[in-house]
Amino acid sequence: MSITLPSLRGGRTMLVAVCALISLCAGGAAAQQAPASAGPVDPQLIDDLVAANRILADQGVLDGWGHVSVRHPRDPNRYLLSRSRAPELVSADDIMEFDLDSNPVEHKGRSLYTERVIHGEIYKARPDVMAIVHTHAPALIPFGISKVPLKPVYHRSAFVSVGIPVFEIRERAGMTDMLIRDRALGHALADALGSHPAALMRGHGAVIVGPSIQRVVGRSIFLPLNATLQMQAAALGGPVTYLDPEEAQKIEAREGYGLGRAWEAWKRKAMAKP
Amino acid sequence: MSITLPSLRGGRTMLVAVCALISLCAGGAAAQQAPASAGPVDPQLIDDLVAANRILADQGVLDGWGHVSVRHPRDPNRYLLSRSRAPELVSADDIMEFDLDSNPVEHKGRSLYTERVIHGEIYKARPDVMAIVHTHAPALIPFGISKVPLKPVYHRSAFVSVGIPVFEIRERAGMTDMLIRDRALGHALADALGSHPAALMRGHGAVIVGPSIQRVVGRSIFLPLNATLQMQAAALGGPVTYLDPEEAQKIEAREGYGLGRAWEAWKRKAMAKP
Amino acid sequence: MSITLPSLRGGRTMLVAVCALISLCAGGAAAQQAPASAGPVDPQLIDDLVAANRILADQGVLDGWGHVSVRHPRDPNRYLLSRSRAPELVSADDIMEFDLDSNPVEHKGRSLYTERVIHGEIYKARPDVMAIVHTHAPALIPFGISKVPLKPVYHRSAFVSVGIPVFEIRERAGMTDMLIRDRALGHALADALGSHPAALMRGHGAVIVGPSIQRVVGRSIFLPLNATLQMQAAALGGPVTYLDPEEAQKIEAREGYGLGRAWEAWKRKAMAKP
Amino acid sequence: MSITLPSLRGGRTMLVAVCALISLCAGGAAAQQAPASAGPVDPQLIDDLVAANRILADQGVLDGWGHVSVRHPRDPNRYLLSRSRAPELVSADDIMEFDLDSNPVEHKGRSLYTERVIHGEIYKARPDVMAIVHTHAPALIPFGISKVPLKPVYHRSAFVSVGIPVFEIRERAGMTDMLIRDRALGHALADALGSHPAALMRGHGAVIVGPSIQRVVGRSIFLPLNATLQMQAAALGGPVTYLDPEEAQKIEAREGYGLGRAWEAWKRKAMAKP
Repeated sequence: MSITLPSLRGGRTMLVAVCALISLCAGGAAAQQAPASAGPVDPQLIDDLVAANRILADQGVLDGWGHVSVRHPRDPNRYLLSRSRAPELVSADDIMEFDLDSNPVEHKGRSLYTERVIHGEIYKARPDVMAIVHTHAPALIPFGISKVPLKPVYHRSAFVSVGIPVFEIRERAGMTDMLIRDRALGHALADALGSHPAALMRGHGAVIVGPSIQRVVGRSIFLPLNATLQMQAAALGGPVTYLDPEEAQKIEAREGYGLGRAWEAWKRKAMAKP
Repeated sequence: MSITLPSLRGGRTMLVAVCALISLCAGGAAAQQAPASAGPVDPQLIDDLVAANRILADQGVLDGWGHVSVRHPRDPNRYLLSRSRAPELVSADDIMEFDLDSNPVEHKGRSLYTERVIHGEIYKARPDVMAIVHTHAPALIPFGISKVPLKPVYHRSAFVSVGIPVFEIRERAGMTDMLIRDRALGHALADALGSHPAALMRGHGAVIVGPSIQRVVGRSIFLPLNATLQMQAAALGGPVTYLDPEEAQKIEAREGYGLGRAWEAWKRKAMAKP
Repeated sequence: MSITLPSLRGGRTMLVAVCALISLCAGGAAAQQAPASAGPVDPQLIDDLVAANRILADQGVLDGWGHVSVRHPRDPNRYLLSRSRAPELVSADDIMEFDLDSNPVEHKGRSLYTERVIHGEIYKARPDVMAIVHTHAPALIPFGISKVPLKPVYHRSAFVSVGIPVFEIRERAGMTDMLIRDRALGHALADALGSHPAALMRGHGAVIVGPSIQRVVGRSIFLPLNATLQMQAAALGGPVTYLDPEEAQKIEAREGYGLGRAWEAWKRKAMAKP
Repeated sequence: MSITLPSLRGGRTMLVAVCALISLCAGGAAAQQAPASAGPVDPQLIDDLVAANRILADQGVLDGWGHVSVRHPRDPNRYLLSRSRAPELVSADDIMEFDLDSNPVEHKGRSLYTERVIHGEIYKARPDVMAIVHTHAPALIPFGISKVPLKPVYHRSAFVSVGIPVFEIRERAGMTDMLIRDRALGHALADALGSHPAALMRGHGAVIVGPSIQRVVGRSIFLPLNATLQMQAAALGGPVTYLDPEEAQKIEAREGYGLGRAWEAWKRKAMAKP
């Protein structure tokens, strides 16, 4: 699906208005012809995506409204995401395929995450990103609403070193109900994210991206942990030694990154739940 | 049951004294003739009320003394509430019907929540309210005893935006044992609540109301979360960006409100407990 | 067993030294003739004492080294306490009978809590006390080592209103290994407790007393909760409204006190653990 | 295996570079001839080591990447440690024997903890140490990155009294990926540890040592607890009474130390997990 938008001078608020008028944005997407499938995927990938949902729920990173997706391994223009379900309940049957306009390949009359456009728009903007988490992790909220930037205090959150921008939806679309309800808002969020590994969403949560399911799960666990530790270090008072950018770079450059060892334990624990 | 109270000049402290004298308040209610039932209700509603009890206990919102009620769907002058039992143990058999003076339709010799008058008096004063929670959630206590008002920091606690009043029982009834022991105190609490979605009770807890069981459960989870996040943001220092009243209004106006997705997970987890 | 101690001028440090010399203190008690039993007790009381151990472990109040006792219902000169075992593992078979010098009625070669003298000495000094908890609850430690007194912020911790003294073992016995190792130290602790419902032990924990097992369990849950809430309220800044002494008195005077409702839930949860 | 290193003037950064060049450090160790075994050990010791892994995971002290070792009881030049596995999943079959250069006696093609050199180098430097934990316990991170020293606030963390040094890897090896990747870095960490019971590792975690498995497990539980309590006491404001060095010494000198009672409960709880 290709949309040519008229030349815009009013900026993003205008863009939102245009979307509403011409019904071409996410809200109207279900009426479009369904996109073609990129074909079946390795059941192991589906299994990892289900595990990612359950792990992040078990670790307190995803509440009933968060979600996690993976880009389709055969086609960069498709991604996989659960139908609208709480992450701790997601199973393989719930996983659906979407195009980057966030239209489902097979709708089957299921209800869908409204904010799935976050995934589609970021996959469009960031060819390097293979997996995305949208979270409301409580520890991130204080940093999204204050002027204190997240800084890297812990070796497993070295990715914080490049800076975690804050997405202020008011600057992009004025007064809203805070949700990323359409592709224009998803695009604005992807724009705020830029080339960073995560962006906080003021008063809402965060979006976290990575080069694989395991990496994005790791980041989604360690970003809130970094936030908590940074708050505690600040409360202790005095100067704080953050990771040096060069240290952070070396950590991020580790081959393989060594997440498999923790993944095995996280997964066993999460999948053992009834 | 209709009571005509004598004209009062001494205010609420006097009213309490009158109640004690004439034995017409909650304490003496058991001796009254039982009110008529509004008839059977859909078992699904009972199931939801039981689930609400278990969910809020599982989420740490209700300790052994909190309670949750729903207005009778066929008669605005009746409400449903458990007999005196810890919420995590409540089952369908425990649910009883009360009139708005908080007299049980069928007493069956069961012991009742002393503070059930909270529910009756609020249902009288607030025709819009369909469900009520009385909680001692720890995170709310610091705000009830300090002068710092709760403000909305998180999209799911947008209802905080209209202000959460603090009920100071000393101003209404002088020195008490802090419990809402009779209808006069229940009325005073309903008066302090006014048209708000919740009121903190100094040194005690809070009362939270809503247009449905799901909504009041959601508010009861997100009010303490908002309190925790606001404390953390304050500790970080510097200016805090709260939800704008217009944002809050748009969030609260969402059709359906989207609680069903989390409810399914909350309920499955809570009901799986032994 | 009756001991006449020589007249002491050197104060408590001297007393400790005397105990060590004449081998009449707890350490040497096993060599004494065993005291007579006050007879069997209602199995329900043993069941409540076992439940108290399990509940307080489950609630995070007792670690592997805390303990809880009850005075013998037939003889105020005897008390019941587990042999040396972590509270979460205590069962009816572990409960033993002691005299107030903390000698076991039947030793059976079992290892005993070194600090059981806390119980014996407090039962001697406080005829009103029927049950005692010795805890290392983390939330109490900051108040034991600072100059900030615990104050009542919550209706269920109204008993804090009369003041919670801090036992500074250095003032009583100089430099020690912090444990209440003998009757002289137990007596010193009972002396610091005075007529209060609890005393903090600097750098160690607390002792909490009450008129029944249920009451002492309730106090042991709500004292650390009060500590946590008071820390949070202090962090929020500004004036704090504590319970008024008259409010506290009215709460403490409640007949029955209404702990049974929570007890049922606490017990079911704790006893369901493997 | 014996290595004669060339005389070094450039200090540790140079040493690291040399290791990389001559491939004699841990990374290249697998190619060496395997060291001889010191013989079988009592299955009870293996059982304790497995329990230590599971307990510290269950208590939140070890995440998926921490590890715990014990010195071989028959040969001070050998130690026992799991193959590369998350501690909560370790079983007896995973335990392997290593020499003090951290070469496995039988490699069996298994993947190994990269940072096992921490254990080998500390066992070399500290003949008194019989067991070692490497942890990323969150509560320790704020103290590792700030200038506030850990001080003993609690009787079970008396070992903090002698001081807990902070290992700043930048001072030893410049910019790294923060991991103790080779023997030279392990040696540098052992050097920073000196004769202390633990050393914090800035932005990473800590290493904790002790005279037995039970003692090192106890220290690993109480060091983060001490950190949390010290943060809370600092937040309360005003002067704090720490353990006196003499008190700490007396606590540490306790015969047996009394850990068995808690160990029984910790182990039962941890081993009951699926």
